Amino acid sequence: MKTTKIDFISGGTVTSAQGFYAGATYAGLKKKTEQSLDMGILFSEAPCVAAALLTTNKIKSAPVVLCQERLQQGRAVAIVVNSGCANAYTGEQGLADAAEMATLAANGIGVAPEDVLVASTGVTGQPLPMALIRAGISQIILSQDGGHELARAIMTTDTVPKETAVAAAVGGNEFTIGGIAKGSGMIHPDLATMFCFLATDAAVELDFLKTALRRAVDASFNMISVDGDTSPSDMVLVMANGLAGNEAIAADSQPADTFQQALDQICIHLARAIARDGEGATRLIEVTVAGAISVTDARLAARTIVSSPLVKTAVHGADPNWGRIMAALGRSGAEVMESKIDLYLGDISVVKGGRPLPFSEPNVIRVLKKSEVPIRLDLNLGTASATAWGCDLSEEYVAINSQYMT
Amino acid sequence: MKTTKIDFISGGTVTSAQGFYAGATYAGLKKKTEQSLDMGILFSEAPCVAAALLTTNKIKSAPVVLCQERLQQGRAVAIVVNSGCANAYTGEQGLADAAEMATLAANGIGVAPEDVLVASTGVTGQPLPMALIRAGISQIILSQDGGHELARAIMTTDTVPKETAVAAAVGGNEFTIGGIAKGSGMIHPDLATMFCFLATDAAVELDFLKTALRRAVDASFNMISVDGDTSPSDMVLVMANGLAGNEAIAADSQPADTFQQALDQICIHLARAIARDGEGATRLIEVTVAGAISVTDARLAARTIVSSPLVKTAVHGADPNWGRIMAALGRSGAEVMESKIDLYLGDISVVKGGRPLPFSEPNVIRVLKKSEVPIRLDLNLGTASATAWGCDLSEEYVAINSQYMT
Repeated sequence: MKTTKIDFISGGTVTSAQGFYAGATYAGLKKKTEQSLDMGILFSEAPCVAAALLTTNKIKSAPVVLCQERLQQGRAVAIVVNSGCANAYTGEQGLADAAEMATLAANGIGVAPEDVLVASTGVTGQPLPMALIRAGISQIILSQDGGHELARAIMTTDTVPKETAVAAAVGGNEFTIGGIAKGSGMIHPDLATMFCFLATDAAVELDFLKTALRRAVDASFNMISVDGDTSPSDMVLVMANGLAGNEAIAADSQPADTFQQALDQICIHLARAIARDGEGATRLIEVTVAGAISVTDARLAARTIVSSPLVKTAVHGADPNWGRIMAALGRSGAEVMESKIDLYLGDISVVKGGRPLPFSEPNVIRVLKKSEVPIRLDLNLGTASATAWGCDLSEEYVAINSQYMT
Repeated sequence: MKTTKIDFISGGTVTSAQGFYAGATYAGLKKKTEQSLDMGILFSEAPCVAAALLTTNKIKSAPVVLCQERLQQGRAVAIVVNSGCANAYTGEQGLADAAEMATLAANGIGVAPEDVLVASTGVTGQPLPMALIRAGISQIILSQDGGHELARAIMTTDTVPKETAVAAAVGGNEFTIGGIAKGSGMIHPDLATMFCFLATDAAVELDFLKTALRRAVDASFNMISVDGDTSPSDMVLVMANGLAGNEAIAADSQPADTFQQALDQICIHLARAIARDGEGATRLIEVTVAGAISVTDARLAARTIVSSPLVKTAVHGADPNWGRIMAALGRSGAEVMESKIDLYLGDISVVKGGRPLPFSEPNVIRVLKKSEVPIRLDLNLGTASATAWGCDLSEEYVAINSQYMT
């Protein structure tokens, strides 16, 4: 695949692509803090081809069930979102509430209800407070700069909003992909309590959009882990309105490669932002496994290591206990030969051919105390590689999660 | 299966069965604390039929490799164990050291080296300090009461020794099974950094002993989880010396049922003791899943729930956030129908047919603050059930694991 020029847009957000508008408000669903926002809308002035990856959890929230149905048509013009209440484990009433939420948003914007999607995150098992939702939706004002507000409105235990945009060109037409995400707790491979909303002005064929999204998510959101839990609400959505004026991008073409690279990059950027902002996290851990016999093996190994509570606590304490990395690798299921394994912490070679090398403990501790901790393994069995991201496990994670509801 | 009378023996330990002797010493492998012991031997005066389940981790410690080879003959008379150094990731030297450790013990007792097994637990990636091992082994004095010392000698971050024994009878012959275990961190389904050594005077055919051990471990040690990590050193060993004088127990017989029940009970007792003593744990969590379509599904669901960091932190904080239990159930892979799920915290019905019931929050908090927290689900799809055990996740777990090595 030829490398294409992809530029990150400074200050970019989900409304950076042409024709997208967003807005948010405080509806009273979350406890009020300074600058609280808990509800918002993303809207495209032109109809969009739309694809999504929804939670793999067998018990799905009402909004996920609604999106699953509506996305069968492969199009959408808006999504209305809220934080504070997930509308999960809420049965028939939950489905009715999610549908009403979409209708309210559709009426406000002036579009058909079936073209509006819904996403909710927050506490589960409680009905959506519809009086607050109704009042809230009517207050939302859409603007081209509204992506920044929307990024804040989807936050729960996140400490910072996650947003960015990238620009690239196909056949002389420049296109943009903007995105916002939320995560923090319950983050794990196969989508955890996380949202990512992507909006592009590129014209993209639906089939290819679905494929491209799956590939980008496999290399990004499915490679991050905060605590191994997954939620009933997860969603990665991409909407493509075609206003860039390019010929619709189809699979197996040069434009497809370019679009895929741009989509990969924005997804990896947002996934790393989620991992870095894991509940209680003080450091980003980046685990790269090379020399695996297959990409599946490389991904399995990288994800298992980055998910290990013992690796995560060792990084938190800057403890050069590399044996925990070997233990996680060994139980990952990936094919390994102990006598071929090389392990690096930062640039420091710690294990060569399966045997420990003498290393300067202060130097390794320095690596483990950086804000980004790179762990690199070479299995020396094949040519496949993969990277996974996670965060350290701190006392603060326990404190946050011991008292979320009460 | 008919229920048989099985009695727990007060003050029982691994040397409670006839003909078993043990002893321990402080060899200097662990930091010295009051009453420190870090090395010991279990010995049977009569040759034993022996079977073991060893770690599933693809990178195995030297002692595990040695045991794997020696147990192919299905017999053993002794095992020499140490804590403080796991002899893992130590290559050829590690294998030589493990073999020498067995030979030293064999010479001391006066048996053939190939009938002696080895187990080591502790820090990985460091060579076994053989000078200390050699001096230590010569100090060990075996006695019929030595099981209690051996139980302490295998402790690492364990806060209490785990030991017990059960007695039952087959065909007029009473037999005893004694056992000790260690665990604490890195405990997870498929054996984690844990040892369990079982010693019985029953006569048991090797094939049935292997089957019985696998069944007992599947219902006990493979149903506990502390943190999801597994180690290169895990071992559950059973030695049967036949001194009870019974006809050797073979599969598919009434004696086999009795022996299985006794083995299950001692394994479940020791597994619960490990879960309760999880690093930083303040509570035992017991998750029972009933009404599943298969035992596989029931076990999967129970283990996933008891392993969930969000469930574990919620129990730690006595936070009645039952949605986290539903989320873990939903991602477990077990077949579920949301509208059929019943959930109980203690005796309190919290979810009925998938819908939350109003409950007294103070009463639920009282359940979550008990030293044993029972979580019970009925999937109402079939007749299979399973129980898993774990512990809450505390700030203390993080503190312990941030500073293990340094």
